[in-house]
Amino acid sequence: MKCWSQIQTLLGDQWMLMIILGSSIAVLSFVMDHVVLFLHNCRMKLFNSTPKGLSYLSWISLPVLLVTFASAVVQLISPHAIGSGFAEIRCILRGTTLHGYLDFRTLAAKVAGLVAVLGAGMPLGKEGPFVHIACILSQLYTTSCCLKKSSVECRSRSLDLLAGAAAVGVGACFASPVGGVLLSIEATAANFAIRNYWRGFLGAASGTLLYQLLVVWSSSRQSIEAIYATEFSDDVPYRPLELILFGFIGMLCGLLGALFVYILRVFIQKMKTCTMREYLLRAPLLYPVFVSLIITTLQYPVFMSRLTAGHLDNDEHFAHLFSNFSWAKGNLTAQEASVVHHWESPIKSMTVFFVFLYISSILASTLPVPSGMFIPLFKTGAAFGRIAGETFNMWFHRKFKIAPNPGGYAVVGAAAFSGAVTHTVSTCVIVVEITGQLRYVLPIIVAAMISNIVARRLHASLYDMLTSVKGLEHPPDVASPTETNPAVRMTVKDFMESPTEFVWRGIGFRELSNVLESSPNREVLPVVDDPENRSLLGTVKRMELEKLMANCSMPVDDQVNFQWFPIESIRIQLLVNDSAAAVHQLFQLAKVNFAFVTNQSQLVGFVGENELEKIIEEIQENPIRQ
Amino acid sequence: MKCWSQIQTLLGDQWMLMIILGSSIAVLSFVMDHVVLFLHNCRMKLFNSTPKGLSYLSWISLPVLLVTFASAVVQLISPHAIGSGFAEIRCILRGTTLHGYLDFRTLAAKVAGLVAVLGAGMPLGKEGPFVHIACILSQLYTTSCCLKKSSVECRSRSLDLLAGAAAVGVGACFASPVGGVLLSIEATAANFAIRNYWRGFLGAASGTLLYQLLVVWSSSRQSIEAIYATEFSDDVPYRPLELILFGFIGMLCGLLGALFVYILRVFIQKMKTCTMREYLLRAPLLYPVFVSLIITTLQYPVFMSRLTAGHLDNDEHFAHLFSNFSWAKGNLTAQEASVVHHWESPIKSMTVFFVFLYISSILASTLPVPSGMFIPLFKTGAAFGRIAGETFNMWFHRKFKIAPNPGGYAVVGAAAFSGAVTHTVSTCVIVVEITGQLRYVLPIIVAAMISNIVARRLHASLYDMLTSVKGLEHPPDVASPTETNPAVRMTVKDFMESPTEFVWRGIGFRELSNVLESSPNREVLPVVDDPENRSLLGTVKRMELEKLMANCSMPVDDQVNFQWFPIESIRIQLLVNDSAAAVHQLFQLAKVNFAFVTNQSQLVGFVGENELEKIIEEIQENPIRQ
Repeated sequence: MKCWSQIQTLLGDQWMLMIILGSSIAVLSFVMDHVVLFLHNCRMKLFNSTPKGLSYLSWISLPVLLVTFASAVVQLISPHAIGSGFAEIRCILRGTTLHGYLDFRTLAAKVAGLVAVLGAGMPLGKEGPFVHIACILSQLYTTSCCLKKSSVECRSRSLDLLAGAAAVGVGACFASPVGGVLLSIEATAANFAIRNYWRGFLGAASGTLLYQLLVVWSSSRQSIEAIYATEFSDDVPYRPLELILFGFIGMLCGLLGALFVYILRVFIQKMKTCTMREYLLRAPLLYPVFVSLIITTLQYPVFMSRLTAGHLDNDEHFAHLFSNFSWAKGNLTAQEASVVHHWESPIKSMTVFFVFLYISSILASTLPVPSGMFIPLFKTGAAFGRIAGETFNMWFHRKFKIAPNPGGYAVVGAAAFSGAVTHTVSTCVIVVEITGQLRYVLPIIVAAMISNIVARRLHASLYDMLTSVKGLEHPPDVASPTETNPAVRMTVKDFMESPTEFVWRGIGFRELSNVLESSPNREVLPVVDDPENRSLLGTVKRMELEKLMANCSMPVDDQVNFQWFPIESIRIQLLVNDSAAAVHQLFQLAKVNFAFVTNQSQLVGFVGENELEKIIEEIQENPIRQ
Repeated sequence: MKCWSQIQTLLGDQWMLMIILGSSIAVLSFVMDHVVLFLHNCRMKLFNSTPKGLSYLSWISLPVLLVTFASAVVQLISPHAIGSGFAEIRCILRGTTLHGYLDFRTLAAKVAGLVAVLGAGMPLGKEGPFVHIACILSQLYTTSCCLKKSSVECRSRSLDLLAGAAAVGVGACFASPVGGVLLSIEATAANFAIRNYWRGFLGAASGTLLYQLLVVWSSSRQSIEAIYATEFSDDVPYRPLELILFGFIGMLCGLLGALFVYILRVFIQKMKTCTMREYLLRAPLLYPVFVSLIITTLQYPVFMSRLTAGHLDNDEHFAHLFSNFSWAKGNLTAQEASVVHHWESPIKSMTVFFVFLYISSILASTLPVPSGMFIPLFKTGAAFGRIAGETFNMWFHRKFKIAPNPGGYAVVGAAAFSGAVTHTVSTCVIVVEITGQLRYVLPIIVAAMISNIVARRLHASLYDMLTSVKGLEHPPDVASPTETNPAVRMTVKDFMESPTEFVWRGIGFRELSNVLESSPNREVLPVVDDPENRSLLGTVKRMELEKLMANCSMPVDDQVNFQWFPIESIRIQLLVNDSAAAVHQLFQLAKVNFAFVTNQSQLVGFVGENELEKIIEEIQENPIRQ
């Protein structure tokens, strides 16, 4: 018994938990990769072994079946498993409570659905879902370890662990521990607790380590390699002046990224209001069948093979996109030729491939199945970068006798485009870790910075868009305090509710009932010493007062005795000159949702969370006002 | 006039500021590198051109002169420039106000002193000082931009920018933008504001970019390279089983790192109490002369050249340590031979070099000059890693026919040792960015994690040690809230000062004077409604009350009229059941240094920052108590 409790203490240790979490995610990720590859091979075998007349049928059958299966599983077991779950995790980390997102049913549905969708060759990824899966696992683990403990402790602890778990998800999925930690920092609330840093690092590192070891042990490789390793040469990978071209690509990726989010938003909103909605609700599997049919048809090898490359798997796509030579050059080596013969022509194939990815990623992400967006975004960006690289290569090769390496441009495009869509710069680090080479780190950072700046000016990020479209709520972020920020100039006295109702010592029953009637929505009422001074003493719950009124049979002119119920202390008070931004921060940090405003200890007003959020959203929309 | 104000607004923009800051630090770093190299070359020329009999004199003269100059400059202009300044910046970021650390005099002294010390070939680095320099620049810049604005805005804004500036310092110094950002996250307060993330990234990236471009333009290179670029081969850099060896190196580095900090602490404390202190205070340049004499003598090429390599500069040291082959192997190429002939024998030279670095880094860091520790720590760790690598190479080559690459072990050792001394894991990323290769990223992370775990169990970090030895204060960190943490179990009622003095409405002059006398240290007194109820109304400044007592000629039995001075509102109140950890967090976040405790709105006690810190330190020292 004692031994068991010792084991429990050890397992309850947060470091231990991160290592276990990292390892389980790594095993899961590894197994999933193999199942997905197996499904892909099945698909190809089935296609190759059927006679020509039936080849289209055999090509579409398995993917459509798998997507339908995924959709059915998710709808039957847990609809919370739909989508990447990253937007939801962000909300949870920012303090919203969402029910059902972190339970075992969702986990099961997510894993089963994800395997099926990826096996079907849909242009979707596993990163977002893995962040969600890691968070569910950490939650399940915490709950099972803290059964005996109080729920408050559990909650604060599990929120802490979730931030680490997000890092583990990315780390074990892309073998990118540093990028995972950075992404989890960027994605969490406005303030990142440093203690989660070390924890996330530990989890992500152990996850990456085990995943990479599993890959090495299961293959004939002798050494650990990056997921989509590139082979750029060390001498002169790019000339300093090419940085201008990289910056240009960053700008274009910023535009394309903002457009991507915009189209996706319009698409989702149209879906919600269109007339077909009725039919789709009645036959929920119709839409998945329809979409997967379109995408699979576009990948149909007989017509599109050398344009959209549906017969290649994910790893092959990236190997080709990042390949270290221009496809347009002469004298290909045998290895190089084996890459190029999959594509019709460098520019044309890539352009079709890019357009196909761009549209089908949008289409696929509206499927009601578990789905991640990172891999398709990477791939779309890489395709765009490759187009630009091949173009530059042709121009400059002829004119200036220098040959930019299109593979490098593909890597830069991948980072810039995914960064623009998600409004993160951690993508730089993830791309570097995925490709295993630092050669292009500066161009990547330059392009991602520029694409971020452009995209941020044009549209909300993918996550923010999904959060608002899905109707999830989290406290809005307030920009940093500067004199140009109206949230700083606007002070409490501009938006507080004033005068506010209050009760006082010696209040009569009649007056009390008036107060209660005139403030029907207030759960908590302030108590002051007397109506003249209005010095704030504390608060009293409305419930208590109502109970008193109901039970008491005193004459209405009598005074209420305040010893009948507790006056509660007030944690946070606001001053009239506090800025909106400061109040917002205080609310977030102290986790309160209302506060009274005092001026020289005299009660003058009330600020509630909802009013505050409205004000801040207003300010953000019309920053010139006021 | 209008144009000027527009320019001012643009320059005052924080993004612009970060780019300007990054660029100026990059230029400064680049110029400093060249001056240091020039001084090194002067030293070598002087040594080579003097006749044999005088060679020792010519060898020691310039370094001793330079160190003495640095020491004199610092003592004359600004003693705040002594040391790395990193510990001080950490304190400032955590909310302490330190005067004189961020002004122009310190900047001038720091730059001049740093150039001289590095030019003298002392085993010191420039990273820490550059963080300090970047912070001073950002502060000066902010002050000049916000002359017209209120000081509160300025302060919150400049604190925000300091966190970004720290990233810029590291980024521009090592061309390591990601590592810089991570280090600034790890080094700042317990909560990192995410808005600084993007800012730090921008500054560090623009700094790195300009620095690298300057390097390329000023040299014959065609392309941007890492600072100390390695050339590990892509095929089989290490076998998975070698991870155990890397872990072992991590463990040893953890031990050595903790020992390093311990020795340094004892040394500093002995220096403070020893009998020589009197002489040293009277002749403040004696100690620098003495220490630089010892270090320079140990580097004297005639005796020690092939052991401590004093004739090589920093870049050459790293190039040799990270070189991609075993020094013990036969058939050296011409390039390889040119490395090996500088050293007597792989193991012996390296051991002497390691011991020399280990001791001289400790010695040099006690010099009263601007000094960074990162580069010497990297170098010491790399030397240790190389020793281990060469040893393993010899053993395994004979027995198992596999040959670990000692260069890789040197890289891993550098990360693990510097991580152990500073208790950071960001060193991993910095090492990767400095060497420009991701080949060894997993071993580096594994070793750094293990060395961190070991070192954290044994001793405080270098920065914490320096902070406490220097008598700087910053709020202690409280570990995360778990049921095993006594800071959570201990509540306000266990450590509050109770009962506490207060004044009330209707207090008489006599009683007021009693209250003032019995609470001589309290700057602010609580005001309650009456002595019975003790409902907290607000606070009043002691100063106001004393002024009143002094000016007023009322009879002592009269009541004080509270309309004569303002009762101030109270922002934060504590409840008796709040945990120590929660209170600590609240103090940090709301930036207050005391609070009153109420129970059902009745004043019951007082908690001051100092008491709280004492309690938390006590808890941290005796976590079993209570």
